[in-house]
Amino acid sequence: MSLRSTLDFLLYDWLDAESLNQRERFADHLRETFDAVLDTCERIAREKYAPFNRTVDTQEPHFDGEKVILPQATHDAHKAFVESGMMSAAQDYDIGGMQLPYTLSAAANSFFAMASVSIGSNMLTSGNANLLMVHGTEMQKEVFAKNEFSGRWAGTMCLSEPQAGSSLSDVATRAVPDGVDFQNDPLGPRYRLTGNKMWISSGDHELTENIVHIVLAKIPDENGKLVPGTRGISLFIVPKRMVDAKGELTGQRNDVALAGLNHKLGWRGTTNTLLNFGEGKYPVDGKAGAVGYLVGAPGKGLHCMFHMMNEARIGVGTAATMLGMAGYHASLEYAKSRPQGRLVKKPDAAGAAVAKDSAAPQVRIIEHADVRRMLLAQKAYCEGALALELYCARLVDEQKTGDAQAADDARLLLEVLTPIAKSWPSEWCLEANSLAIQVHGGYGYTRDFPVEQYWRDNRLNMIHEGTHGIQAADLLGRKVLMEKGRGLQLLAGRMTDTIGRAAKVPALAAHAKALGAALQRIGSATEAAWSTGDPADALANAVPYMQAFGHTVLAWIWLDVAQRALQTDGEKARAVTAGKIGATDYFFHYELPKIGAWLNVVETRDPTCTALPEDAF
Amino acid sequence: MSLRSTLDFLLYDWLDAESLNQRERFADHLRETFDAVLDTCERIAREKYAPFNRTVDTQEPHFDGEKVILPQATHDAHKAFVESGMMSAAQDYDIGGMQLPYTLSAAANSFFAMASVSIGSNMLTSGNANLLMVHGTEMQKEVFAKNEFSGRWAGTMCLSEPQAGSSLSDVATRAVPDGVDFQNDPLGPRYRLTGNKMWISSGDHELTENIVHIVLAKIPDENGKLVPGTRGISLFIVPKRMVDAKGELTGQRNDVALAGLNHKLGWRGTTNTLLNFGEGKYPVDGKAGAVGYLVGAPGKGLHCMFHMMNEARIGVGTAATMLGMAGYHASLEYAKSRPQGRLVKKPDAAGAAVAKDSAAPQVRIIEHADVRRMLLAQKAYCEGALALELYCARLVDEQKTGDAQAADDARLLLEVLTPIAKSWPSEWCLEANSLAIQVHGGYGYTRDFPVEQYWRDNRLNMIHEGTHGIQAADLLGRKVLMEKGRGLQLLAGRMTDTIGRAAKVPALAAHAKALGAALQRIGSATEAAWSTGDPADALANAVPYMQAFGHTVLAWIWLDVAQRALQTDGEKARAVTAGKIGATDYFFHYELPKIGAWLNVVETRDPTCTALPEDAF
Repeated sequence: MSLRSTLDFLLYDWLDAESLNQRERFADHLRETFDAVLDTCERIAREKYAPFNRTVDTQEPHFDGEKVILPQATHDAHKAFVESGMMSAAQDYDIGGMQLPYTLSAAANSFFAMASVSIGSNMLTSGNANLLMVHGTEMQKEVFAKNEFSGRWAGTMCLSEPQAGSSLSDVATRAVPDGVDFQNDPLGPRYRLTGNKMWISSGDHELTENIVHIVLAKIPDENGKLVPGTRGISLFIVPKRMVDAKGELTGQRNDVALAGLNHKLGWRGTTNTLLNFGEGKYPVDGKAGAVGYLVGAPGKGLHCMFHMMNEARIGVGTAATMLGMAGYHASLEYAKSRPQGRLVKKPDAAGAAVAKDSAAPQVRIIEHADVRRMLLAQKAYCEGALALELYCARLVDEQKTGDAQAADDARLLLEVLTPIAKSWPSEWCLEANSLAIQVHGGYGYTRDFPVEQYWRDNRLNMIHEGTHGIQAADLLGRKVLMEKGRGLQLLAGRMTDTIGRAAKVPALAAHAKALGAALQRIGSATEAAWSTGDPADALANAVPYMQAFGHTVLAWIWLDVAQRALQTDGEKARAVTAGKIGATDYFFHYELPKIGAWLNVVETRDPTCTALPEDAF
Repeated sequence: MSLRSTLDFLLYDWLDAESLNQRERFADHLRETFDAVLDTCERIAREKYAPFNRTVDTQEPHFDGEKVILPQATHDAHKAFVESGMMSAAQDYDIGGMQLPYTLSAAANSFFAMASVSIGSNMLTSGNANLLMVHGTEMQKEVFAKNEFSGRWAGTMCLSEPQAGSSLSDVATRAVPDGVDFQNDPLGPRYRLTGNKMWISSGDHELTENIVHIVLAKIPDENGKLVPGTRGISLFIVPKRMVDAKGELTGQRNDVALAGLNHKLGWRGTTNTLLNFGEGKYPVDGKAGAVGYLVGAPGKGLHCMFHMMNEARIGVGTAATMLGMAGYHASLEYAKSRPQGRLVKKPDAAGAAVAKDSAAPQVRIIEHADVRRMLLAQKAYCEGALALELYCARLVDEQKTGDAQAADDARLLLEVLTPIAKSWPSEWCLEANSLAIQVHGGYGYTRDFPVEQYWRDNRLNMIHEGTHGIQAADLLGRKVLMEKGRGLQLLAGRMTDTIGRAAKVPALAAHAKALGAALQRIGSATEAAWSTGDPADALANAVPYMQAFGHTVLAWIWLDVAQRALQTDGEKARAVTAGKIGATDYFFHYELPKIGAWLNVVETRDPTCTALPEDAF
């Protein structure tokens, strides 16, 4: 099944993406314009991304003392992406955007993630610019956001610091007003920043003439103290090169210095940097301190950031999914062509239990039961995850363009589903990549085949944009509780709706029942976890909770997909439907039963790990 | 817990390794000589292996057109290992061995695997020489085996071919008698071999003056045809450089040519090669064809090989275990020193559900519940796996030196346990390595920390020496059936014995009950799998079966270890015992319940994967 046919089914048959055209914002679109976007992205990914995925792995970014050098292929891929218009796909027509639904944009971007996840880092640039479009001044939009959308400049998000990775409340970068007239700069209230930022993707490169850093920093109080916690965090635009109010470079460097490149396990096409802000290497107007322009209100930095968190996390989930998908496709192709071994057969009365006819020719490995298991697991993980990501993308569109009730429901559903959309593919599509290696046998362990790189690249996704543990604490500690549990109830309602429809289909009735039981158990586990009211008890097993929650969500997604697939007909749809039903059966037989083990410890608030004395480890 | 204290507990408290000294073969040993061996290996590993683990990863073996170049550190490590005497540790005194129990030798070698799994490849050399000691002629032992034990020469095992990896019955390397007097060569019946061998570890290097290849090949019948299947396979000694009956190099190269080096995901310190035998690059006596000396009887090659299979698989399992252990120790140390975030605390009546005091200093991450869970999981996987490997090693000693009944029981138990000893650590200690990365956060994803390399190195272990799928088919298709299921019954007897003892200990009684239920379910699942008598049904879910079987074995191992730990006393033992109990509790609460999901599909002989039409994938 090609990615395109999978997307076509999910977008048009399952999510009814075409109906978005009936909304005012998308009224100029037709199925044909959606298809044209998919065609273009598929072609660029095939021509400019896929052939160079190994190149960007082996030719890691390096610093020559002046510049960060990237392979030519990265420049070419960037150029082609910018020319496609995808950087501002979601933006209004009047600023050069396509007013494309996010659902379509997410689907189209999946081609790039599958072809080479690390050659591009456009998600950061468009995320950065999207944030400025919401929270920036008119001038900030004009000067910074628009130049990012046009591809002239690139963007970053500078959150982490060496001592503050997951713990953003410990951000120590300081921003102090720059002169008495700091309020009067046309680009926004002007500050000087000093501090070190770690793990900054695309923090330095020559792909664009400038880089727009969005930086979390704290403004000291009157005593020079930083406010503890996240309340003290403000957001600043810090360009690598100084610009004027017309968006022209002034010729002066800003005081942002590359302190080091991180050398990673994978995802090597994207520069990852340690940046020093304001160390005095590039003084501006004779003074040390990186010039930054305040975005939004002081102390509201995290609030502004969270606005784009859902989309960023759906983006990470999609990247993980597409790495998994790339491995699935590669190993499927390999399994169809590699001869090895023979099938076991029923022995005659005198024979051993397992007999093989060693004079017969070898069979292709896709004929072996265990290889099929490994392939179907990959399909169930990756196509299921893709369906979930697109479902979430569809909710983003609903939140933006639906009626008030639908929009609010979508918002709340997204709150609950986003930790799953981020964490589930990062765990299970990584497992898919491991299975893809296994299908290849020894060959999969060599760098002559692509699957080992997918596996390395994918390992990042459980770490960045909020680790697995952070997602789990967010889910169980915040999301299922917020608004008195209304998000969880909404999700349960959607599941119950699917269960009701599937229960009437003989091929799915048993699955519908199993999902109902799982849903009920999630509900009771949630209550049991919180029954003492002490978050230390409740969150002691937050990750197993999230794993069970995620598997239940994916079972629901598959059941819904399967139910829709059975309504399609015609010979063309036969294999597609059989594949969806097979993956659904796989998920319900092999995967969903795993939730029992995970929920056991949640329900008992198992203290084994928290109680162990430190010297006993 | 240092590796040494873990080993001390397992060897002396749990396995009573000291009692081996009462056997004739080991009568000269004392606890002190055992300890001296452990001390020496620990020191060499610390000084000559560990500091260079990253070196051998970054300075991959390369071929300069004449020679395969390895880093100096690899030469130094080899020299130190040889000088330690460990290459022939298990051999008789009269050929320079130590007559060390295999249990001790396995324990001592674990230091090397933990320090740098790929810098040495001594297991192949000693395995090769051990095989010759059993199946070779006196002359073959004298010339080849002894020079391997002394470290003067190295050894390989040449099984796989490009078209025959897992499927050894398809070996196509041909061996034809070399001249009319081929029977009269003092080194053994002399053949000429032609064929290509793939995935040959240490297939070429300059660590030693010669390399002794042991090669699987087929002798054509009178019509020039190769016998199909494994029955046609014979075993040959093929030296890289020709030698005389005194073990001196004759100065002539044998016709074995390096065709390529494999570039791998990990395990890069060990050369992995494609070798061409007999292509005519190095003609011997003017004739193409690699000269090989028959070992054992023609057509009995696999039989001879299987003799060393158990030890090789225990070796792979131990390597996987120790890579996991290395990651555990690294992440434990990191977690004890890295400050990040704050603990959740019970809020006051007015507070949100989860509150933190952001003005308080950050805590070390070992204080976070989810980090503790990841650490305890690693401990449970890796220390449990180490216990299993040492238990199997102890069975090897029993098989060799026990009385007739004990030896036969040990043999049969090893048949059943070896697939688990090989597969379980390769799956779960790999998972441990992934958790070690996760504990490190972004730092773990960089090459500045060692954990990413452990993870890459460990990914090999599910592939080589029989893939996961092969081990599973061996377990369910052969091992649990052989001798009318007597192996499984023996194992069940051992488990029942442990259950009986643990049931009397209040802290372990619930675990004892759970293990009893798991054991019963393994039994009924085995029957259900085979209830149709058709191996295609039974083996359709062989890997889930093996996963459940493995988890049950590990639960038993932990229960037995815990029961023993509770008998130790004194303040020194307190932390050790608490750790063992904690890991046991973890295993029974978090891991053992997973077997339900795996056994579901085994019991129903679930056909989802086998039945899916190929075009539906």
